[in-house]
Amino acid sequence: MSLSPAFSRRTPDGDAMERAICDHCGHVAYENPKIVVGSVVLHEGRVLLCRRAIEPRRGFWTVPAGYMELNETPEDGARREAREEAMAQITLGPLLAVYSVPKLSQVQLIYMATLDRGIHAAGPESLETRLFSFDALPDGDIAFPTVHWMLADARRVIEGRATPPFANPAGF
Amino acid sequence: MSLSPAFSRRTPDGDAMERAICDHCGHVAYENPKIVVGSVVLHEGRVLLCRRAIEPRRGFWTVPAGYMELNETPEDGARREAREEAMAQITLGPLLAVYSVPKLSQVQLIYMATLDRGIHAAGPESLETRLFSFDALPDGDIAFPTVHWMLADARRVIEGRATPPFANPAGF
Repeated sequence: MSLSPAFSRRTPDGDAMERAICDHCGHVAYENPKIVVGSVVLHEGRVLLCRRAIEPRRGFWTVPAGYMELNETPEDGARREAREEAMAQITLGPLLAVYSVPKLSQVQLIYMATLDRGIHAAGPESLETRLFSFDALPDGDIAFPTVHWMLADARRVIEGRATPPFANPAGF
Repeated sequence: MSLSPAFSRRTPDGDAMERAICDHCGHVAYENPKIVVGSVVLHEGRVLLCRRAIEPRRGFWTVPAGYMELNETPEDGARREAREEAMAQITLGPLLAVYSVPKLSQVQLIYMATLDRGIHAAGPESLETRLFSFDALPDGDIAFPTVHWMLADARRVIEGRATPPFANPAGF
């Protein structure tokens, strides 16, 4: 390797949008929205959260979730993230929500789940894992807006006030 | 540009998976699953299909659907595809299904929709558009397996036999 990465934004022949094109070789780096898969994991009425060991938002609480990999289903991805981030085996329930964050070109597929045998522990990307009562969530220390949304939506389902799946809250 | 695109598959430092890495400059081309957004569009009990003008499966019937673009929501993407492929303004209803095709690293977000004012016409990627009765679908000329799934699932919803959203049929 003798060169540095260098991309220019141009519209390829026959395309309708600007794409990132390598200055050296002409490779078109198509950029697509990314899928985050995750789950709101319940155990005896409480919800499993992970305190992030990595940036962004290191030290803040989130649910087990992350980027979907190639050649997996969203369901397998959600189970994988629970294993990786919370050392947890989970049983998936219904789809809780499809949220989108167009500014980040991100779509989040979030499932309801239950924790098998109540076992969880911090994986390499987590500082700690903990089960929280919905009445004592770490509201000021939640990592991302969508985590607020999914916890509120999960609570509405648990309390029988609404039926999933949800989308973004009004105005978002 | 003096070089040809050339990528090797290696595991970057600190990563857990092989990625496509440019032989010339070291750029890591992260590959992520792609999102297809689309809709089953109804009008007076019939469903809007488009006959594909492009490969793959040119000449076969599909619903208005395509790759989600950056910085849009899935809902906006589904409306855009209906405009582009069927010159149709649609009103989106509930999420019909989240299908995944792990072999293709593809996730499909399919919505129910209705056709505004009954107006539709072939866009540049369609040979023709047509409203089909569910009893007279072009079963032998459907473009993709997921189109069979979504038409069957939409029919179950319309006939009150099931509640969306659906995932892949059992065994797929």
